[in-house]
Amino acid sequence: MSEWVNMLPGIEQIHAAAERIAPHARVTPVLRSVVIDALTGAELYFKCEHLQRGGAFKFRGACNAVWALSDEQAARGVVTHSSGNHGNALALAAATRGIVAHVVVPEGAVRAKVAAIERAGAIIHRCAPNQAAREAMAAEVQRSTGALLVHPYADSQVIAGQGTLALELLQQASELDALITPVGGGGLASGVAIAAHAQWPGLALFGAEPAGADDAARSLAQATRVTSVVPDTVCDGLRALIGEPNLAALRAHRVELITVSDAETIAAMQLIWTELKQVVEVSSATVLAAIVQQPERFAGRRVGVVISGGNVDLADLPW
Amino acid sequence: MSEWVNMLPGIEQIHAAAERIAPHARVTPVLRSVVIDALTGAELYFKCEHLQRGGAFKFRGACNAVWALSDEQAARGVVTHSSGNHGNALALAAATRGIVAHVVVPEGAVRAKVAAIERAGAIIHRCAPNQAAREAMAAEVQRSTGALLVHPYADSQVIAGQGTLALELLQQASELDALITPVGGGGLASGVAIAAHAQWPGLALFGAEPAGADDAARSLAQATRVTSVVPDTVCDGLRALIGEPNLAALRAHRVELITVSDAETIAAMQLIWTELKQVVEVSSATVLAAIVQQPERFAGRRVGVVISGGNVDLADLPW
Repeated sequence: MSEWVNMLPGIEQIHAAAERIAPHARVTPVLRSVVIDALTGAELYFKCEHLQRGGAFKFRGACNAVWALSDEQAARGVVTHSSGNHGNALALAAATRGIVAHVVVPEGAVRAKVAAIERAGAIIHRCAPNQAAREAMAAEVQRSTGALLVHPYADSQVIAGQGTLALELLQQASELDALITPVGGGGLASGVAIAAHAQWPGLALFGAEPAGADDAARSLAQATRVTSVVPDTVCDGLRALIGEPNLAALRAHRVELITVSDAETIAAMQLIWTELKQVVEVSSATVLAAIVQQPERFAGRRVGVVISGGNVDLADLPW
Repeated sequence: MSEWVNMLPGIEQIHAAAERIAPHARVTPVLRSVVIDALTGAELYFKCEHLQRGGAFKFRGACNAVWALSDEQAARGVVTHSSGNHGNALALAAATRGIVAHVVVPEGAVRAKVAAIERAGAIIHRCAPNQAAREAMAAEVQRSTGALLVHPYADSQVIAGQGTLALELLQQASELDALITPVGGGGLASGVAIAAHAQWPGLALFGAEPAGADDAARSLAQATRVTSVVPDTVCDGLRALIGEPNLAALRAHRVELITVSDAETIAAMQLIWTELKQVVEVSSATVLAAIVQQPERFAGRRVGVVISGGNVDLADLPW
């Protein structure tokens, strides 16, 4: 495990990332809801990354990775595989630097997300909807074009970029007691854990994971990375298996995982749409679903709740 | 016409309203969208009244009306007829003063709105879905309870309250060239026109009206209040006939009306949900529909766009 911890960014790299992305990324707002606070008994501070450029937190990590490249590296372009938000983020980030982005997109990805990647000017490469096909196609693009891989989550600069969100949130909402993020590949959860604990070591950290893609929860419980989970969840943004460095960070920072059913997540999504009046994607609602499921862990506490993205097909809503 | 102008509030009353509602109402944010600006060629400043207390601008007028009452008047309670947002706003406003609110609700009103009125603690009275039945039932409640009528739009204090929105917007987005609001009964459009022109007489004022409820456009064209229109539009918040004082204000302030089809409005609603990632109700999208329909009137200009509300039934979306 220790070799993975060594590839994680430190707080200096997260501060450097914040400086690097500042000209390009948005400072996203924090919203509150009287009704949802009353329902949960907690003080919830919703960090609105669906209002980030590209409609998801992913722009932070992709932008940091793109601008951390040397000119020579950048000239070869970048490549990634992504079911949506990271691909879009990398395409937008590459455009800010005027370089080429290749995005490997599995069949069946959310249409709105693929359309956004196209609009952002990336070159799209389609593949079968599984991890092996994604990685193989990305490797093939690397070979044939010389482009550098920007992995969606198992990448130090990407993790550092995602961590900038926590620096921002802790400035906007001081004296938080706890913080919860969705967990897919773990780029967000790991970056946030490193940044948040560097600022305030007493913060309780939580992750919300779909029950149908609970590889991170199993991996923490079994103290080894479980790769046998076949994702079965409506949360299209959280189907990736947790990365090794990401898992190491979750363990090091004692992030507690809460698994939620798709039904709980969809109900929480409706609550966010109705009360906060924000269009968030289903993956983003796992965090509120976790709080509603286990109110005793959050009641009476000031909780930062990371809304990870807002890219949805309006013609294909999950209710 | 002149007697109606005399019942309109002046800017002093709108300033008094702003002071009166400040402890209770929210200062709503202004959002922008790079994509929608590019699409329309204009600089659009979306004033987010769907994030107002109660999910609509209506709280401003209702709150001002409730707090403008003497203690003796307030003790008798208030009553109104409303298909939704004004009723909810009056119920919430009455609760801030600890007085009773009666709300006459026509059959067929949006379920989410009626549920909100109930939650806010108002006494609900149901009636047939037409203007005559609404007014008759409200009069009956007045007689039997002594409650005071707070009309949804043909009321000087209500108009003054809605006008506070323009004061706020012109502070948040300085140097606007134009401003557009939806037009139903005209409470919003008239209050905004009075306040905006008092601040900046050169501002171009527009109103967006559903083609299926275009009584205000016809009334302005024919120089008399047209009451023969039978509303037929998906915009449930804009089915009321324009009020006499409201029409007088629109005329006095040379508000230009643009009528939009329901299809144009629904397309604009999807654009707002997708790009601004805000849950706005269909009536709120008429304003963007008008800008998209007539880009030459707005291109190159800084335009304030009033998003009037965000109360929707997620199970009954118009696409």
